Amino acid sequence: MRYLRMTLAYVGTAYAGWQRQPNRVTVQSVLETALARVIGECVHTVAAGRTDAGVHALGQVVSFSTETRLSNEALRRALNACLPNDVCVLEVCDAPEGFHALRAAIGKCYRYLIQTGSLRDVFATDRLWHCRYELDCEKMRQAACHLVGRHDFRSFQSRGSPRRSTVRELRRLKIDATPLLAGQRISIEIEADGFLYNMARNIVGTLVEVGRGRLEPDQLPLILQARDRRRAGPTAPAHGLYLVAVKLRDSSSCSST
Amino acid sequence: MRYLRMTLAYVGTAYAGWQRQPNRVTVQSVLETALARVIGECVHTVAAGRTDAGVHALGQVVSFSTETRLSNEALRRALNACLPNDVCVLEVCDAPEGFHALRAAIGKCYRYLIQTGSLRDVFATDRLWHCRYELDCEKMRQAACHLVGRHDFRSFQSRGSPRRSTVRELRRLKIDATPLLAGQRISIEIEADGFLYNMARNIVGTLVEVGRGRLEPDQLPLILQARDRRRAGPTAPAHGLYLVAVKLRDSSSCSST
Repeated sequence: MRYLRMTLAYVGTAYAGWQRQPNRVTVQSVLETALARVIGECVHTVAAGRTDAGVHALGQVVSFSTETRLSNEALRRALNACLPNDVCVLEVCDAPEGFHALRAAIGKCYRYLIQTGSLRDVFATDRLWHCRYELDCEKMRQAACHLVGRHDFRSFQSRGSPRRSTVRELRRLKIDATPLLAGQRISIEIEADGFLYNMARNIVGTLVEVGRGRLEPDQLPLILQARDRRRAGPTAPAHGLYLVAVKLRDSSSCSST
Repeated sequence: MRYLRMTLAYVGTAYAGWQRQPNRVTVQSVLETALARVIGECVHTVAAGRTDAGVHALGQVVSFSTETRLSNEALRRALNACLPNDVCVLEVCDAPEGFHALRAAIGKCYRYLIQTGSLRDVFATDRLWHCRYELDCEKMRQAACHLVGRHDFRSFQSRGSPRRSTVRELRRLKIDATPLLAGQRISIEIEADGFLYNMARNIVGTLVEVGRGRLEPDQLPLILQARDRRRAGPTAPAHGLYLVAVKLRDSSSCSST
């Protein structure tokens, strides 16, 4: 039995999220179908981040075990030949025995893209959140500072999958803005040791409330303290979110033979 | 009667090109349908560049005349509310009496995007040409130098719509390369006073033959002299091509009231 790890990129638009569901096309289902065709085995894959419907990935990490004798590179090429155009295996490499992508993940980085102004970017449909109102990035940065660090993020957790602890360490929250002909393109990068359900989108939704002047930056500590979802802003739409990278425990380091 | 000019961006993937055709969805047909809904008139639109199926536009210029009393900005907003997500009106402005986008165009700029390497970019499906082989951009630049200037481009004209003269002035041909994790992203910008049928894609197809070593840069003058389509390289696929901008005669300058 071999344990493998792969890195995957996908456009989430056509999928009901990562996780296999009856009668829905999901990234996991097309990947496992492609694996069955290529290696002739039914394998169960595990992803480090179970992205929601519409969420994209630049560096999703997936683990599975197999009996195949195909080389990792041959497997990668064969899978990409079978997968639809909006899913691509970037890398396949050997993993330590028992490797489990979800349990090995000790950090994740998400990016959220926003475009402001009255002009839609036709090339970015379903790939960013188009906000018609202007956003004050300086205020958003001030608000973001209050979120960095180890906090109870319960106010930023949507209902659905309560975790034992709602304390997470937010390691980095970086907001970049690029001016466009009309409006601006804003990128929000969020890195944490783990994310509660919808946490990234709820943080973005709250920062956007600050950017448009409906919340003040210094209200963020109070929102955290409240531990009440109703105090934070709305959930930003899924189609602006990208799972950029997953940080794995050292022992899961890869050799790509 | 008012003469109007608009600038349009679209993703060409879903369309059988610009030009209205029976039983096909084209950019012109969705635009004229939207215009009919917004202003209640059947108008005939004229584009500066009749892009082929799959070709994209960042700055297509379109002219039409109308009796509507809507302001240009109201017209732009109403059209964008009616148009599909992959077509967007960037600007509407007044044009001189009798303005005709095709006749007023005295130059056009196209951009062609290529990505090399074994990794597909899932976010660029149908938006660039994925070449699996490596390309030598320095050789492509040397070849490009031979094409800049006033030449008979008959060798770069596909059959289909022969023009009276096949002499064109190619004003600029700029090749930029950005390294990627695997391979590179190449952008080829071509500016000319006019383009023969498929000329931009035939130039790109020929430059790619040079880049992969099947043609030498110093063969380009011979290819031009031959005035024979069979001497140049193949036609690059439509989905890598973007109509970037149209240069209009001074008298067509716009006032966007």
